[in-house]
Amino acid sequence: MNFHTRKWVKPEDLNPNGTLFGGSLLRWIDEEAAIYAISQLGNQRVVTKFMSEINFASSARQGDIIELGITATHFGRTSITLRAEVRNKITRKSILTVEKMVFVNLDEQGEPAPHGRTAIRYADELFEAYRRDQRTVEAPKASGDDFVEREAEEAAH
Amino acid sequence: MNFHTRKWVKPEDLNPNGTLFGGSLLRWIDEEAAIYAISQLGNQRVVTKFMSEINFASSARQGDIIELGITATHFGRTSITLRAEVRNKITRKSILTVEKMVFVNLDEQGEPAPHGRTAIRYADELFEAYRRDQRTVEAPKASGDDFVEREAEEAAH
Amino acid sequence: MNFHTRKWVKPEDLNPNGTLFGGSLLRWIDEEAAIYAISQLGNQRVVTKFMSEINFASSARQGDIIELGITATHFGRTSITLRAEVRNKITRKSILTVEKMVFVNLDEQGEPAPHGRTAIRYADELFEAYRRDQRTVEAPKASGDDFVEREAEEAAH
Amino acid sequence: MNFHTRKWVKPEDLNPNGTLFGGSLLRWIDEEAAIYAISQLGNQRVVTKFMSEINFASSARQGDIIELGITATHFGRTSITLRAEVRNKITRKSILTVEKMVFVNLDEQGEPAPHGRTAIRYADELFEAYRRDQRTVEAPKASGDDFVEREAEEAAH
Amino acid sequence: MNFHTRKWVKPEDLNPNGTLFGGSLLRWIDEEAAIYAISQLGNQRVVTKFMSEINFASSARQGDIIELGITATHFGRTSITLRAEVRNKITRKSILTVEKMVFVNLDEQGEPAPHGRTAIRYADELFEAYRRDQRTVEAPKASGDDFVEREAEEAAH
Amino acid sequence: MNFHTRKWVKPEDLNPNGTLFGGSLLRWIDEEAAIYAISQLGNQRVVTKFMSEINFASSARQGDIIELGITATHFGRTSITLRAEVRNKITRKSILTVEKMVFVNLDEQGEPAPHGRTAIRYADELFEAYRRDQRTVEAPKASGDDFVEREAEEAAH
Repeated sequence: MNFHTRKWVKPEDLNPNGTLFGGSLLRWIDEEAAIYAISQLGNQRVVTKFMSEINFASSARQGDIIELGITATHFGRTSITLRAEVRNKITRKSILTVEKMVFVNLDEQGEPAPHGRTAIRYADELFEAYRRDQRTVEAPKASGDDFVEREAEEAAH
Repeated sequence: MNFHTRKWVKPEDLNPNGTLFGGSLLRWIDEEAAIYAISQLGNQRVVTKFMSEINFASSARQGDIIELGITATHFGRTSITLRAEVRNKITRKSILTVEKMVFVNLDEQGEPAPHGRTAIRYADELFEAYRRDQRTVEAPKASGDDFVEREAEEAAH
Repeated sequence: MNFHTRKWVKPEDLNPNGTLFGGSLLRWIDEEAAIYAISQLGNQRVVTKFMSEINFASSARQGDIIELGITATHFGRTSITLRAEVRNKITRKSILTVEKMVFVNLDEQGEPAPHGRTAIRYADELFEAYRRDQRTVEAPKASGDDFVEREAEEAAH
Repeated sequence: MNFHTRKWVKPEDLNPNGTLFGGSLLRWIDEEAAIYAISQLGNQRVVTKFMSEINFASSARQGDIIELGITATHFGRTSITLRAEVRNKITRKSILTVEKMVFVNLDEQGEPAPHGRTAIRYADELFEAYRRDQRTVEAPKASGDDFVEREAEEAAH
Repeated sequence: MNFHTRKWVKPEDLNPNGTLFGGSLLRWIDEEAAIYAISQLGNQRVVTKFMSEINFASSARQGDIIELGITATHFGRTSITLRAEVRNKITRKSILTVEKMVFVNLDEQGEPAPHGRTAIRYADELFEAYRRDQRTVEAPKASGDDFVEREAEEAAH
Repeated sequence: MNFHTRKWVKPEDLNPNGTLFGGSLLRWIDEEAAIYAISQLGNQRVVTKFMSEINFASSARQGDIIELGITATHFGRTSITLRAEVRNKITRKSILTVEKMVFVNLDEQGEPAPHGRTAIRYADELFEAYRRDQRTVEAPKASGDDFVEREAEEAAH
């Protein structure tokens, strides 16, 4: 399992006892799992359908660094099943594990739709696969350097 | 089961697909369950220890009103087990159910400690039980009306 | 007056003096009152029009549990007038009271519109009245259990 | 009245109807008024004690710019009374007015304490008055330029 | 340079070391600069294109009051260049300075578009210029006072 | 450069034009860079001292997935210099680059202190190095399973 996203436990993430609020942790896991599902299925319309039980093995304190790991354990016809683990980045001590998170792939009408995937795709393949449909919002054409140069010129006159 | 806390689904609670973000929902449930456990155990040092599986039966949209219900299903020696349900306030359609959420009662050293409770206590009993230890932060002694009156007086001179 | 929504005072809700930030409290009251107005009027297009004076009688500290109570005191032709109270859940000590919050019922053009209500409706009536117009977003048809079962089957082959 | 703080209405500030959430507005006003009271009284321990009625004259939409104006209208012995106005920055159309917000000056025990002020102090006086008690957290002694230079040197060896 | 927006450093703005989180500060600066650019260009479609280097000279602690100052230093054909400074309101000690922030003026297709401005416009001119296009969302026609009066009347019968 | 933390662009991250708010992006970068500096220096007391210029090459829309990459480019005596890049996870198109972010290592008095590092340490070394000082908050000794079993037993009597 690869650990990607990392969080720095800040005052806004604490419960009134001064430890990491369980609800913040659950929010982080759900986002990270959705990101993983979207990347694998190549579709932004995915929804959380099921989460298996969670045993909170340890907590964290303000200033700790948390890292989240997700991996796919099963590809269904319209679903993907993930396993999630959260741990302390330094000690690698486990905070919690979720054995099964099921996300469903939806079509434009919001109905479950076959996704056609059967195995984990890694970064390089993802790159090739999606190259054509890139949908980043373009920034204004002129680059920042152009602006700075043009400004300098204009200011010189 | 009594449904207490209610949420109005606002833009800040949505996932990028425009429906209620599962992570927000989980955050709300964890807070509501902690509040219930604290109220029943009469102790603010409680931590989430276990959550059973969650099946997301339906979602919600911007503008919907969600209500959260919690009830105690078991009192252990140092733990309390709760059942949670989230539903749409108007239709009463269920959004999800968590059969078992275990909270542990801690002492001042953060170790599990017996809580001495064996059954659900209702509002009236809670009131009597805690009357003596009330710990609200007192507002400045003079009331707002006093300020307004005093001002009026002072202004009249 | 029934007290519904409850809040656990977390670090994110504090002012720099370490007590509950008045602005957070006002935000909670406005949301709870809007939820009450929407439920009673059966219309999501309501706006806050007026709030009477607020006397902050006491405050709260990190870890305290706050509960919010709202009741309707008057039904106008296009408006509804509410009374709000916020108190400490355990001691029942009052934090503040707002005698009058007026919400206006709007039509689709955003103009005040008659709402036809003259008295408080309770949960059971609300249930009947809105049954037909339920508008929850449906989850994908297949249940989480179906996914889990199907997975098990597929994995067995 | 001087208008200082400005807000850009973002999706996170909207109610589900797509207009500025009244609760966000109230939160902004309370913070701005506290800042004004602290600046005038030269004391960070101030609490909101009273707010007079609020009539919501107009609302705002995503992308609008809101500005907040506060002025002191009365100096009591231990309190300060403010008047607040919120308006649209461009049109100068009023969104709401709060005629009276009373803040109380507290001592270190949290009790109301005389503040000794009797009139509005302007920026220049504030500057002189507080010069000696400056309490900004110092940044590490070496400046950023030093770091950059030192780095360049070190890299050159 | 005029200092407008002010922030009260609250627990939610701190890093785990208990000083103002640099990321919060950067978020505040970007919003304030966007507000300035929008006001000057009379167009809500502006985007941040460039930010020059930032030297963090000092930090701030919980309870401190921060003020943000922005001024235009250059008007390009489709861009505007701003200078930003953040300081402690009381001591006037500088927290940081950004010499150059470039915003680009976009048309409805999101392409850079000439804005026609060549100099800073002050509040009075802005007022005249935009009077005609005012776009505040109107509140329901009847005023809050009307509601209160009507209520009183109705209640009297 | 390794890309670790990922973000799903949600409504709460947007500016009023509906694209990713630059301020949110800057907040994410500052947190990720601090996490990297802490991990490398083995010290939680680090502060942002300097950020070089930022050229916003492209933006992102709701639903996009953003990934953040950080690498150390120089180890000073008391500082560490990082390079940051933000890109769209799918297209790998760059959103922005920050050539130089300087963090300073502080001692317990908040003064710059030598950190003793001269090169990037990778995950395995970090693990060994910090094993002894692990500081995770321990969860209550009894595991969740114990609670569930004990409950079952107790319920059986």
